Amino acid sequence: MNKAIILKNRPKGTPQLSDFKTIEKEMPKVQQGEVLLKTLFVSVDPYLRGRMSDAESYVPPFELDKPISSGIVAEVVESKNENFKEGDFVSDRLDWKEFQVSTGEGLQKLDPSIQPLSAYLGIIGMTGMTAYTGLTQIGKPKAGETIVVSGAAGAVGSVVGQIGKILGCRVIGIAGSDEKVEMLKSKFGFDEAINYNTTKDMNKAIAKAAPNGVDIYYDNVGGTISDAVHRNINQFARVVVCGAISLYNATELPMGPRVEGLLIKKSALMQGFIVSDFSDKFAEGTQQLGQWLKEGKLQYEETVVEGFESIPQAFIDLFSGKNKGKMIVKI
Amino acid sequence: MNKAIILKNRPKGTPQLSDFKTIEKEMPKVQQGEVLLKTLFVSVDPYLRGRMSDAESYVPPFELDKPISSGIVAEVVESKNENFKEGDFVSDRLDWKEFQVSTGEGLQKLDPSIQPLSAYLGIIGMTGMTAYTGLTQIGKPKAGETIVVSGAAGAVGSVVGQIGKILGCRVIGIAGSDEKVEMLKSKFGFDEAINYNTTKDMNKAIAKAAPNGVDIYYDNVGGTISDAVHRNINQFARVVVCGAISLYNATELPMGPRVEGLLIKKSALMQGFIVSDFSDKFAEGTQQLGQWLKEGKLQYEETVVEGFESIPQAFIDLFSGKNKGKMIVKI
Repeated sequence: MNKAIILKNRPKGTPQLSDFKTIEKEMPKVQQGEVLLKTLFVSVDPYLRGRMSDAESYVPPFELDKPISSGIVAEVVESKNENFKEGDFVSDRLDWKEFQVSTGEGLQKLDPSIQPLSAYLGIIGMTGMTAYTGLTQIGKPKAGETIVVSGAAGAVGSVVGQIGKILGCRVIGIAGSDEKVEMLKSKFGFDEAINYNTTKDMNKAIAKAAPNGVDIYYDNVGGTISDAVHRNINQFARVVVCGAISLYNATELPMGPRVEGLLIKKSALMQGFIVSDFSDKFAEGTQQLGQWLKEGKLQYEETVVEGFESIPQAFIDLFSGKNKGKMIVKI
Repeated sequence: MNKAIILKNRPKGTPQLSDFKTIEKEMPKVQQGEVLLKTLFVSVDPYLRGRMSDAESYVPPFELDKPISSGIVAEVVESKNENFKEGDFVSDRLDWKEFQVSTGEGLQKLDPSIQPLSAYLGIIGMTGMTAYTGLTQIGKPKAGETIVVSGAAGAVGSVVGQIGKILGCRVIGIAGSDEKVEMLKSKFGFDEAINYNTTKDMNKAIAKAAPNGVDIYYDNVGGTISDAVHRNINQFARVVVCGAISLYNATELPMGPRVEGLLIKKSALMQGFIVSDFSDKFAEGTQQLGQWLKEGKLQYEETVVEGFESIPQAFIDLFSGKNKGKMIVKI
């Protein structure tokens, strides 16, 4: 039999295990031109929360009682498509199913001799590209500038900070535990890191860590952490709005300080994006990240959870920050 | 004697007449190299409110018990500077005084045969340049796009809308009276205009006026009007944050819906600016606005108040929208 995970209810607030259901399906039959894929690694990402609501967004919401989909690395276990053979590794946005068929369209072939397969979901996949494009295309860092990254120990944030260091910036990370703060400094080379869970006055802590002010704020979290960073931005600052994980589970419209006055005072910019906005930069980004990895300039961290039925819990755990780096489920 | 208007108190909330004081000063003596200027027209502008507070901003605050300054057109009535002669007309940021001396540095000579002198404070002065640079450099309008302008009947807004029309956009104005709404459509050629004082559901009214959504929002007001416009923005929208007159008199940090989620969903941009950020575009802007004026493509409106001692009231009246177009005090 073939397990699949469907969206049972649209979550209210923080997603619960009861919002998901594992069902059993027939093993699919492979038609001419198709391949049968066996899921190996599943990426769980905060942005999936948005698709679980039925509010209009940049991508249509997941349908109730249908499998959820996300970035997946799979192995071709049967092929009736001349472009793929048994044993090929591929990645794509695929359903949360143990096995599924594909026409091959959109499948990207992966070379496990270059990087471990799971890295294609992270540092050299969508995560790395999100970090690279958001920082370079919106943040436009110049050597000597100060970058603050929220969600800094997460999949995107940890890469953003390292790219910032490679480009000659002072980099300050914000994360939710002393262990993460330590990792940011020792493993990823951040200049400073702040544990927001133990810091009383974030405004002051950021001012101290960024004595020359904040030129770029790469924001993965939104909310009150961001309010504190905003208060420290410099003239002509760029706020890269990549994610707002602190707001995704809000059940009412989240309120906060209005930003218009600040943006005028500082001639500052706030810009939201999704990675596909910059698809014309993917070739450049892949080449650049691959080179930095090869040169040992980029490190990455993964939190790997095992077992197909663990996918919903792994996803839920993102919102309490249980992951360091990329959260991956290994099947 | 020579009157001057000083800042007596830092306003709390809406400025009051008692925050200002008219004092009498000696007539200044003109030293070698200086000119004596007689004030003819004084520009009062919402942004001056920021300088009356002592909060840090992009320009230092006005000092208490010292004259306030703003854009002024003056006549040279005595000259000991070879670059100026009696009868020359000039403009600069100058003090609210009937007479003052200048070294000549920074004075811009004006030609009243090209445009009426007051226009050098408005359509072909800082106001026009603010409209032109903010719209073209941040808004980046493309023909066929939809622009919403708040504070549309004001000095900047009325110019923004007309430039939008010249560039082939659909333009919707938001203003505070039926008379202003009528003026936007009949005099300035806006496609639609909305009276926010008589409209119950601004969200719906904007959706109706902008059936294809909002690509550019040129914001002069901030606050709840802006919240309603934000709800109607398209993917890749640009929000030009020029002013926030509805927030300038706030006595507490104004709160509103957090924008991060929206910016991500729509891959949208919000950018604040002050006109001097784009000083490298002033030559282009002056040439372009002058040409459009000559071709009859640009109209402008002035609300002219008379008398030196009327300056504070004219300034205060900006916040209740008593002006149509540029508010000018004629001495």
